Amino acid sequence: MNSLLVVGSVALDDVETPESSVRDALGGSATFFSASASLFAPLRLVGIVGNDFPMERTAFLKERGVDFEGLEVVEGKTFRWSGRYDRNLKDRETIFLGLNVFEHFHPVIPESYKNTPFIFLANIQPSLQLEVLDQLEKPLFVAADTMNCWIGKEMDKLKEVIRRVDLLFVNDEEAVEITDDYDLIHAAGKLIEMGPELVVIKKGCHGATINSKELYFTIPAYPTNCVVDPTGAGDSFAGGVMGYMTRTGDLSQKNIKKALVYGAVVASFAVESFSVDRLEEITLDDLEERIDRIREITFFD
Amino acid sequence: MNSLLVVGSVALDDVETPESSVRDALGGSATFFSASASLFAPLRLVGIVGNDFPMERTAFLKERGVDFEGLEVVEGKTFRWSGRYDRNLKDRETIFLGLNVFEHFHPVIPESYKNTPFIFLANIQPSLQLEVLDQLEKPLFVAADTMNCWIGKEMDKLKEVIRRVDLLFVNDEEAVEITDDYDLIHAAGKLIEMGPELVVIKKGCHGATINSKELYFTIPAYPTNCVVDPTGAGDSFAGGVMGYMTRTGDLSQKNIKKALVYGAVVASFAVESFSVDRLEEITLDDLEERIDRIREITFFD
Repeated sequence: MNSLLVVGSVALDDVETPESSVRDALGGSATFFSASASLFAPLRLVGIVGNDFPMERTAFLKERGVDFEGLEVVEGKTFRWSGRYDRNLKDRETIFLGLNVFEHFHPVIPESYKNTPFIFLANIQPSLQLEVLDQLEKPLFVAADTMNCWIGKEMDKLKEVIRRVDLLFVNDEEAVEITDDYDLIHAAGKLIEMGPELVVIKKGCHGATINSKELYFTIPAYPTNCVVDPTGAGDSFAGGVMGYMTRTGDLSQKNIKKALVYGAVVASFAVESFSVDRLEEITLDDLEERIDRIREITFFD
Repeated sequence: MNSLLVVGSVALDDVETPESSVRDALGGSATFFSASASLFAPLRLVGIVGNDFPMERTAFLKERGVDFEGLEVVEGKTFRWSGRYDRNLKDRETIFLGLNVFEHFHPVIPESYKNTPFIFLANIQPSLQLEVLDQLEKPLFVAADTMNCWIGKEMDKLKEVIRRVDLLFVNDEEAVEITDDYDLIHAAGKLIEMGPELVVIKKGCHGATINSKELYFTIPAYPTNCVVDPTGAGDSFAGGVMGYMTRTGDLSQKNIKKALVYGAVVASFAVESFSVDRLEEITLDDLEERIDRIREITFFD
């Protein structure tokens, strides 16, 4: 089977929602992505943590075959994020951000990872995403995610990332901010003009769309009854999309649509708990049930 | 064929978008609904205008078989609304609102309309919607729309409307406001508990959902490349849904889903011009093409 490389943050999060809260929870873009994508395909992880990091918490990922050779462990504290969600479980404020060991991080891709065919550049500084791209040996398919904060601070670097990837993941607000176009159809078109063949626009509870010059496909959010914490939903979504693409190795339009459906379904599990707790419990079989349900709620004749 | 009765506002609108503007345009909830629903089924309209109203502008509706016996024409000025849209073509401010002859309006349902099987109570004061319900003779299927301003001002009356209809149309913000629940799945459930068998939540460019105790179905917005003015999109959407239900007389789950697809497609035409201009141009055949396209952008296997 093909394998998939993810480069991103591994963090410890304190998260507060109106209903509940959690402390020292496993978080970070690479963590959520891995907990999702590892359901589908062999995964290689590049990131950094401090020597305070509770490595035993990644046991379930190791059992699923995630290769941690690329996770640097250095003297110091792990990246920490602490946030509080509004009643709508959408808007959130960052209460505390401690880059810690992440501050001087420069991703080093181990020799054994360099020929990985599928690559996901999770949300980290665009300049670091570029450093990764420079170390890879002709990957088959590269996707990147980003975040609003880089649009202001590192726009030139971000544009270079966008130019060099095959698939860009953004949320609706980021799509608008990058293109200065409020119409998501137009915004997707402008992003495609910037380089990537494919652009996924994530819209939270409104689902997602995938866009290319030839393809437009929409997927609703799976209607879970139990949203606990939306943190990591986007990373988990990307993990499902990239995991399914990697597992099948099939980049046809038909299969790309299916990958998006898997993304929506994995993300629906991710939000049903704090951290990666729900993603840790589930198997591919659990996804299949929800895939059938998504078919039901979108199909008409 | 079954017929459909609409009670709502007929207005003259001044609308300004960042790109363009229009003055004295045909507007109002009953107008947009009629321009859409008249594509599908014989329609009866109840409303009020002043003697300044340019009646010749409704010629295309009369040609499509809309019965205007219920449109009162009285001494005075027609209801006027003037609004300006933000760059996102979503947020808008009301610049001027002149109720005029609408201020003392009490809908009178003509004898010949009283046994109409399908009823749509477009967005007007809930107290007036109740006056209509009291005049009807055992309708088969009643739907109502509402608007944020009544949620604060006439909540008790609005609750009574919701209790007495079969289908409630609301947008996502209204659903949240009425139920005090930000989760649209939960909000729909709470609205159903309030009375109606079916609840449609309209989400603008994110499409819509229809909800009942047994049914959940989602539809994306048709990806039009040319959004000119979103005014009346919700009324046009409801016109498509109710028009198709009336035309087919079929209230099965399968057909209700299809009705929602027609709603989405008609609404996509409505936003491609100011006022009802695009809705005036099109025929049922134009809708079919977009129905096929919606199938393409939602279907996966």
